[in-house]
Amino acid sequence: MTDGPAATPDRRPGGRTARVRAQVLDAVRAELAERGHEGLTVEGVATRAGVHRTTVHRRWHDVGGLLVDVIDAAGEADWRPPDTGSLHGDLTALNEEIQQSLVVQPSFAVALMAASFHSERAARAQTRLWADRYAQCEILVERAAARGELPCGRTDAHALLIAATAPLYHRLVLLRTAADPHLPERSATAAVAAAKAGAFSL
Amino acid sequence: MTDGPAATPDRRPGGRTARVRAQVLDAVRAELAERGHEGLTVEGVATRAGVHRTTVHRRWHDVGGLLVDVIDAAGEADWRPPDTGSLHGDLTALNEEIQQSLVVQPSFAVALMAASFHSERAARAQTRLWADRYAQCEILVERAAARGELPCGRTDAHALLIAATAPLYHRLVLLRTAADPHLPERSATAAVAAAKAGAFSL
Repeated sequence: MTDGPAATPDRRPGGRTARVRAQVLDAVRAELAERGHEGLTVEGVATRAGVHRTTVHRRWHDVGGLLVDVIDAAGEADWRPPDTGSLHGDLTALNEEIQQSLVVQPSFAVALMAASFHSERAARAQTRLWADRYAQCEILVERAAARGELPCGRTDAHALLIAATAPLYHRLVLLRTAADPHLPERSATAAVAAAKAGAFSL
Repeated sequence: MTDGPAATPDRRPGGRTARVRAQVLDAVRAELAERGHEGLTVEGVATRAGVHRTTVHRRWHDVGGLLVDVIDAAGEADWRPPDTGSLHGDLTALNEEIQQSLVVQPSFAVALMAASFHSERAARAQTRLWADRYAQCEILVERAAARGELPCGRTDAHALLIAATAPLYHRLVLLRTAADPHLPERSATAAVAAAKAGAFSL
């Protein structure tokens, strides 16, 4: 857990430092979603957050620092993978959450991906966040194995999770096709079928 | 087929107009791969192509016009989907081609994706190119069905192709993981297993 790249020593949960960070990061998310990565400026963020520009400069230095911290904050959020009682249900619920984050207008998730193409620091922060999220989701595969839903022997949980989720990102972010309400479930179905056939067995 | 957004009426195959276009588009690809989308300028392209700046301005107008034409040119190239004799072989070969285009340094394909996050015209051109390529690949699924490799009834060829290829883009472009030489074949295996289990049946 981090409280920002240049956290001051007087921070305490709920204190002024935490409050300022929350205000500034809310402003970054809003600016990013509305204006995209190119429109993000320290000045714009400070104005929207209602804090002085020098406060933002001192703590986050520049736009790159703001991007890294907003991505780190997403990783700190108390996210839990779904737990519906079946692998198919869990992957469908996960995919519905992903689809929702990608199709909402404006999409903060898509804006972050765009930013990571243009900022090496943002890209590294985002890579860490994705790695954490996929690691958190491995429990879905462990639970499915414990319930006897998967073939005997070990399953490559990461490969299974990528197979289930990748079509959503590919269609919605890269191919820019319209959202299909059936896609979360269909993509889950395909990944479960491949897993049951042993395609992800180690 | 188009010869550029503002082709002049005197163009002929192999003529001066076609030659200038080839030189300019080669320069766009090289600049894009080396400097990325932000580093692309009409001046830089003209200098590298050895043509006058006004020639580029007159025919392509601006960086957006250059991007659209380089994407359109990729669509005009005589690309054929693999034909190895099995669906698994075809999808593996297709994935190997995709992986190669994404990991080569510098990657023109990744530079184009980055550009499409920042230029609506480039994004539309790229969406058309992807749609064409996936449509061209549907023959792989038709051939597999004719060989009896798929369950009876119709298969959603597009969904199968997305399932097979999406993990490569997701891992290499968005998650930025290192290339895995086994990934093209493994992703093909998972998609074929799901298809045989009827996950893409219509």
